[in-house]
Amino acid sequence: MSALVTYRFPKGADPQKLGNKLAVGQTAGSWSERWEHRTSSFQAHLAEVVSTATSADGHPTATVSFPTADLEGDLGSLLTLIFGKFSMAGPIKVLRIELPEEFGRKPKFGMNGLRQQLGVPDRPLLMAIFKPALGLSAQEHGEILTEVGLAGIDLVKDDEIMADLASAPTRDRLAAGLRALDTIEAKTGKRPLYAVNCTGGGGAVVDRARALQDAGANALLLNGLTYGWHTVEQVCDAVEIPVLLHPALAGALCGAPDHGFSYATLLGTLAAHSGVDAVLYPAHYGSMPFDPAQEAAIRDALRARGVAPVPSAGIHPGVVPRALADYGTQVVLNAGTGIMDHPSGPAAGVRAFYEALDVHARGEAFDPAQLPEGPLKRALALWGSP
Amino acid sequence: MSALVTYRFPKGADPQKLGNKLAVGQTAGSWSERWEHRTSSFQAHLAEVVSTATSADGHPTATVSFPTADLEGDLGSLLTLIFGKFSMAGPIKVLRIELPEEFGRKPKFGMNGLRQQLGVPDRPLLMAIFKPALGLSAQEHGEILTEVGLAGIDLVKDDEIMADLASAPTRDRLAAGLRALDTIEAKTGKRPLYAVNCTGGGGAVVDRARALQDAGANALLLNGLTYGWHTVEQVCDAVEIPVLLHPALAGALCGAPDHGFSYATLLGTLAAHSGVDAVLYPAHYGSMPFDPAQEAAIRDALRARGVAPVPSAGIHPGVVPRALADYGTQVVLNAGTGIMDHPSGPAAGVRAFYEALDVHARGEAFDPAQLPEGPLKRALALWGSP
Repeated sequence: MSALVTYRFPKGADPQKLGNKLAVGQTAGSWSERWEHRTSSFQAHLAEVVSTATSADGHPTATVSFPTADLEGDLGSLLTLIFGKFSMAGPIKVLRIELPEEFGRKPKFGMNGLRQQLGVPDRPLLMAIFKPALGLSAQEHGEILTEVGLAGIDLVKDDEIMADLASAPTRDRLAAGLRALDTIEAKTGKRPLYAVNCTGGGGAVVDRARALQDAGANALLLNGLTYGWHTVEQVCDAVEIPVLLHPALAGALCGAPDHGFSYATLLGTLAAHSGVDAVLYPAHYGSMPFDPAQEAAIRDALRARGVAPVPSAGIHPGVVPRALADYGTQVVLNAGTGIMDHPSGPAAGVRAFYEALDVHARGEAFDPAQLPEGPLKRALALWGSP
Repeated sequence: MSALVTYRFPKGADPQKLGNKLAVGQTAGSWSERWEHRTSSFQAHLAEVVSTATSADGHPTATVSFPTADLEGDLGSLLTLIFGKFSMAGPIKVLRIELPEEFGRKPKFGMNGLRQQLGVPDRPLLMAIFKPALGLSAQEHGEILTEVGLAGIDLVKDDEIMADLASAPTRDRLAAGLRALDTIEAKTGKRPLYAVNCTGGGGAVVDRARALQDAGANALLLNGLTYGWHTVEQVCDAVEIPVLLHPALAGALCGAPDHGFSYATLLGTLAAHSGVDAVLYPAHYGSMPFDPAQEAAIRDALRARGVAPVPSAGIHPGVVPRALADYGTQVVLNAGTGIMDHPSGPAAGVRAFYEALDVHARGEAFDPAQLPEGPLKRALALWGSP
């Protein structure tokens, strides 16, 4: 049993040689005759190159196997081991990580758990983001939540940059949100999930996660990459409500061609072993430059452990046919402006999405000329259908 | 009062335009007429471009000012705000961050505190790393510690990849280390600092930090970047012993030319506001490709808050003259193989360093032909003097 890591090296490099250097340097390190009597102990810790290949873009790669004897079972120690010092050794990128099934954490809810919480057995789940991001009061957040909730939204999340700010403290946002959820539930029978952004320094994130749950929060949003994987593990261990991972900062770790991680490794594999229930990431439909192959690999890595994929950015009602082709129904579609900036308001944005799902289910074309007057037609007039 | 962040954009980009987009997109986000009555509230949160320039390598840059109304005072929320979504928006690199003096944490010990703990008022401090990294028993770690301690070492640290492994559990390493420290103190009157690598998943890092302190540890090593900044803050808040930050994973965040952070921002500015007492980073003397200007900027950012700079990698006795020219005496020189692989053994490695400091203090040349037989001469024969 071991962790398999595939590294991409510069063109012209000898992958066997570099892989060996990395395998030794990241485990036993420098040997000397003095420790010859410990050879068998070193061997048990030594990583080794199990294969070399060429990447799709023509770079040499090596897959290195790290013994589980070197691993402590958490993401922090894993990253130190596989890409600590060597991340600084030049243009080396981690393309892929394969972890043992039992490594790390699994989601407590995941895609199926979210469906159960919401009582939505089959169609894609729909999530909205509060916009504008900063500047609204807690009460205004509650008003927006009521509006999209009465229109049938499944999940609403804070914007990720909304911290515990004086203009809309987290506790106040939750209180206003809970009042909104009560109203929605009383009128529709369904209680959406409101993912409160869980923030704070020096341990406060974890304490706040518990406090928010105790105060009635039914989901949390977590900027796991800016706080760190260890905090993600802590928060997931601390609460029994769904935790949604936001990808803020992922570009600093994955955006470069020759450094860091592939997006699929970070937001797919590592996230899937962190304990979170859903992972947001840029869809390739929007303005963010994102590789469809990486998006698909994220989706598959998350699904392999039951975690809900949440393609985000550039999601609006017109995207529904493409998103269903790419994802099927086992997905959370997450829209910010694609709901909030609907010309008839956020509730119409939600209705436009459900209308889009219906139209698509009936196999009809997304042609504004053929659609009846209503939210979808107005959405398509504004945003089109890619 | 605000946080100032300088972003580097692709050549040919309009820094004012991109800076504005970033300033709005990362704070208020999308506005609409509906919220016109909240304009003054949005304005209070809105970031703005305060200047544009051209970087040394000819790229357009913009410096954006983020109001403290958007900040929660910790590094996690800061990173979400200044480089969350926009880290994924293309080749944008954070060159520089300027934080208010009161933002974040300060070291409890820092360079001066380390000196006080060790009773070494003036010369550079000297740190050794256990090598080989994995495969030795806890008792063998204790033997090495005794050896370098009796030779006068100031600090010894675990290798960063040494987790809580069955072959040498953390608790056992500490116990063996404490026996070694007792022996050293009894014979020399000086008790070195032994920085135990503090690891563990899902909150265990923080619990272990406290437990190690309670069990007598007098310093901790922390892979802060693989666990995350929030964990760094937690550990620094939890203990009253020096915390040394290891840069494992820094290359994934800083190594790329057009993405992520400059090393000086991550290992200098952010680390200086995290609460740690000392920060390790690659020296440009060694085999790691490291820019001397970035190294100098890290040093200066750390010193500005009293944090000890610890240039590492490629440090051996022959480097002493160059290191003193670059750092003066307010530095911790950290050597792994540069001590452990000395041809006469680790104790001779330590003595070679002190001999080097003496020779340099007397203004004598590092010429093997002029040196007496002894540890320094043998070190120079093996490693040279760059």
